[in-house]
Amino acid sequence: MKNIIKPYKKEFDFSYTSGVAITIELIKTKPDIVEHIFIHTDFNQPEQIIKLCDQNEITYTISENVFKRVNQKENTYLLGVFRKYPSTISSEKSHVVLVNPADMGNLGTIIRTLVGFGVHDLAIITPAADIWNPKTVRASMGSLFHMRFTHYENIYEYLRSFSEHKVYTFMLDGELEMNSKIMSKQQPYSLVFGNEATGLDEKFRFIGTSLKIPQSILVDSLNLSIAVALGVYCFNS
Amino acid sequence: MKNIIKPYKKEFDFSYTSGVAITIELIKTKPDIVEHIFIHTDFNQPEQIIKLCDQNEITYTISENVFKRVNQKENTYLLGVFRKYPSTISSEKSHVVLVNPADMGNLGTIIRTLVGFGVHDLAIITPAADIWNPKTVRASMGSLFHMRFTHYENIYEYLRSFSEHKVYTFMLDGELEMNSKIMSKQQPYSLVFGNEATGLDEKFRFIGTSLKIPQSILVDSLNLSIAVALGVYCFNS
Repeated sequence: MKNIIKPYKKEFDFSYTSGVAITIELIKTKPDIVEHIFIHTDFNQPEQIIKLCDQNEITYTISENVFKRVNQKENTYLLGVFRKYPSTISSEKSHVVLVNPADMGNLGTIIRTLVGFGVHDLAIITPAADIWNPKTVRASMGSLFHMRFTHYENIYEYLRSFSEHKVYTFMLDGELEMNSKIMSKQQPYSLVFGNEATGLDEKFRFIGTSLKIPQSILVDSLNLSIAVALGVYCFNS
Repeated sequence: MKNIIKPYKKEFDFSYTSGVAITIELIKTKPDIVEHIFIHTDFNQPEQIIKLCDQNEITYTISENVFKRVNQKENTYLLGVFRKYPSTISSEKSHVVLVNPADMGNLGTIIRTLVGFGVHDLAIITPAADIWNPKTVRASMGSLFHMRFTHYENIYEYLRSFSEHKVYTFMLDGELEMNSKIMSKQQPYSLVFGNEATGLDEKFRFIGTSLKIPQSILVDSLNLSIAVALGVYCFNS
């Protein structure tokens, strides 16, 4: 196991959690996918982790070199190696749909926010930031392990699979202003958000109802993770 | 001017904008603080920038080396050098108060969001991430130049200055649930948020009204910039 530890690449069939809280979240939420745990020699409370590993029949190594090899910028004391796993969104639940999200930090933050609001189904239209990258996992604070997600090659493939969902597309010039007091909130719904740089292109105007988040002309747009948070909050409050 | 260009340090009395959109925002919003503009040799549409510089009597250089010297990770084609300037929040307007924000990306994103919602007054309790750092400026997408801000050494210094403001502190175990339908939204108000890692400590429970944002127990907390966005949205909708 020690030998396979190297900086993450997208083609790997495994990934890492880096950090104490995130790795504990991994072990508690999905013990069956954990391959191995590395505990840093300098970690001052290894007992809790060792107990957790033993309870879940997970192997571990106390090491220092492996942390250097994974080439983490930040100092971390706990590293989890886990197998990537298949995941499928539920047809009965409401979804968030991200079209070509490019930034791993944004993607992770969005996952953390969705789980925070009880939304556990995320559709991703590719190409997209790697959901398994340790940076995404880290930005999600481990909430990735509470999320169902499916990748689609284009929006039509997604729409064909979920014809019962009421679709809302978030566009800077959407036809309706988003407003928590008037949204019908008919379940299940799909809230669709575009890429950080380009938003949703014109074809999305003909898909569902387009919404705009009221905002000052002094900013070009809101950060993607902020827009998603406001949309989901609005539909859940 | 060429000689002063080096990687940014906090003690400098100047800073940089890096990127085309942000630098144009700088020139249009605060031409009086611009020291110099650097245009990359490979930038394919320098005419618009040169015209803007000439209109505002701003000097510029077309260069390649300076971009390497500032050691930007990302490729950028436009660099603005600007003087830091004094700024003071308005006593008549509502404020957001950030207590010890540590992450420059979060701080910049928060500024972008606040300007997006028409909130132009930000109090920062030190120690805090450097608001002038090019990373903060970049995350703000240039909206920093539309923001008034003042730094305070502690919360009491801030409170003494604004005794008319109704204070709301955002805490994970706040006494009231934030809800856009019931908030009184009495103006002016101060929305107070803690540090990314630690939130607000116990002394804030005795300052104003504490609010919690309803969220799942599956996440420890929301990202700071998300929490601020939801708070401000709630008080403005």
